[in-house]
Amino acid sequence: MTELNRRTLLAGTAAATFAAAAGAAPVSAATPAADKQAPGIYRYKVGSLEVTVATDGARTFPLSDSFVLNAKKDEVNQALEAAYMPRDKMTIHFAPIVVNTGSKLVVIDTGNGEKSFAETKGETGHFLANLRAAGIDPQAVDTVVISHFHGDHVNGLLTADNKPAFAKAEVMVSATEWKFWMDDGEMSRAPQGRMADLFKNNRRVFDALGRKVTPYEWNKEVAPGITAVATIGHTPGHTSYVLASGNAKVYVQSDVTNHPDLFARHPGWHAFFDQDPAQAEETRRKVYDMIVAEKLAIQGFHYPFPGLGHLEKDGAGYRVVPAAWNPVL
Amino acid sequence: MTELNRRTLLAGTAAATFAAAAGAAPVSAATPAADKQAPGIYRYKVGSLEVTVATDGARTFPLSDSFVLNAKKDEVNQALEAAYMPRDKMTIHFAPIVVNTGSKLVVIDTGNGEKSFAETKGETGHFLANLRAAGIDPQAVDTVVISHFHGDHVNGLLTADNKPAFAKAEVMVSATEWKFWMDDGEMSRAPQGRMADLFKNNRRVFDALGRKVTPYEWNKEVAPGITAVATIGHTPGHTSYVLASGNAKVYVQSDVTNHPDLFARHPGWHAFFDQDPAQAEETRRKVYDMIVAEKLAIQGFHYPFPGLGHLEKDGAGYRVVPAAWNPVL
Repeated sequence: MTELNRRTLLAGTAAATFAAAAGAAPVSAATPAADKQAPGIYRYKVGSLEVTVATDGARTFPLSDSFVLNAKKDEVNQALEAAYMPRDKMTIHFAPIVVNTGSKLVVIDTGNGEKSFAETKGETGHFLANLRAAGIDPQAVDTVVISHFHGDHVNGLLTADNKPAFAKAEVMVSATEWKFWMDDGEMSRAPQGRMADLFKNNRRVFDALGRKVTPYEWNKEVAPGITAVATIGHTPGHTSYVLASGNAKVYVQSDVTNHPDLFARHPGWHAFFDQDPAQAEETRRKVYDMIVAEKLAIQGFHYPFPGLGHLEKDGAGYRVVPAAWNPVL
Repeated sequence: MTELNRRTLLAGTAAATFAAAAGAAPVSAATPAADKQAPGIYRYKVGSLEVTVATDGARTFPLSDSFVLNAKKDEVNQALEAAYMPRDKMTIHFAPIVVNTGSKLVVIDTGNGEKSFAETKGETGHFLANLRAAGIDPQAVDTVVISHFHGDHVNGLLTADNKPAFAKAEVMVSATEWKFWMDDGEMSRAPQGRMADLFKNNRRVFDALGRKVTPYEWNKEVAPGITAVATIGHTPGHTSYVLASGNAKVYVQSDVTNHPDLFARHPGWHAFFDQDPAQAEETRRKVYDMIVAEKLAIQGFHYPFPGLGHLEKDGAGYRVVPAAWNPVL
């Protein structure tokens, strides 16, 4: 081991030199030294749009009895095993994207935030570091579009010291989502626990931004080539996006499903974080049937990185067929 | 576009600074500037073994009538469409790996070689640059293990100027493979065209190394935790590897199949580059049935990057279920 460590130390030094040169945050090396994972960044084109997927990480936690509201833990374990994942544990992936439209640099969702890096012992909070590793300066981002107001999508709006992570960007939010979470009456009626905490967290995040946001409406472009579409159920204002340029199209599904090996394979399963599970299921089936019929490419926030693929029907559910990694752009 | 180019130029400069610091070859940026793909590098553990997959790239070419010897072009096109790939084109991926055993740094197969970068207009020849991006110095490699003597596996033994790419490494080759390709009688009997060219290419490559190789036998370790196993048919000495440490195991299949969306889904199809197609099919079915039964993880040289997954039976064939990308090691 000694010889090997000496050898790989050299490479580590080179990586550190780069990290310093690029001003990358210390939370994640820009290039992997020995015993470090590679940065989770991947680029693809949608016509003239350039998409960069930059993972925020993944969280693994014990599988609770109520993770899927309407399935027994044993059924969920069977689905995990069928997907070659360990029993009794759940891993959730987080993959925000950046779209370079040619005139605008647009971030869609922001991950769990830099602060979560310490809180999760390095499981999440990688998005900003991965952006920098991808050669993208957060200060150069023009627009941040938020699909819905859960912590893994909005907390990355702030840095570890609660400053705006994208200081020069316009923050665009679903008008319906904004209305719901910022309404004092809704907040007062929220059950204690998770829902009340979400209301508090959203005020914490958006208050830090001086509540300076631009609400967007569905079926309109939030940026050139990026159209917001309603996919409600997971939250009241939950939004997906269609990226379109020339003949190319990608459906950015946000949280229409969480992990596809559970919720695409079993579209009738209700995740405990779906606010209106019946509506979420109706949306999921409608959107997935459309994507299968149109053979659309799909990008999933909670799909394993890089999260681009196609959907096909498989038995009573759907299966994600990941797109092949293209080694050149 | 102008504004965006100015903005991303900054990031490009940082990446160039790193490339210089790390001594990376200019063929592929160590980090992606704007309009560049991310380096195709991925790490995972097999017990105490650390595997780094570093893609050499992918080649796309027109689908010929004889690409699959025993299937019609239309059937192949149907398989391509079923995998959401374009008709009438074939893409072949190349993913060599490096195994850090703790005491040895072992490269398994070497890709198409640096020289192919110019020949393929940047499609392939990325392996050395990606190794460096992964913090691995080719001069630090102890052992290079070659699965079989096709150009996409051996040509990377040489740099663009025909020098040894891994100057300090012992080069280990299948004893059966070596005997076949270095035999003057076999060479004299080889049909003109592809087979004769392969004989010539192998002499070109191994002559440049002074024919200094260590032949290895099947069912023995080529390095600690890496056992060579016979998987003949594709070539007479074609070899796969079992990586094993503690309870963990990964089957490195080399070319038991080429692109899995064709040849795992249709194990009876004979690729034109299988030297003994019937034997290759027998090997393929035997190995894949074993991997399905044992639920082994599999790493495929021609699987899309990063090429790690599991196999399941699907109809008359097999389907690769890619492993989820782990954002931390």
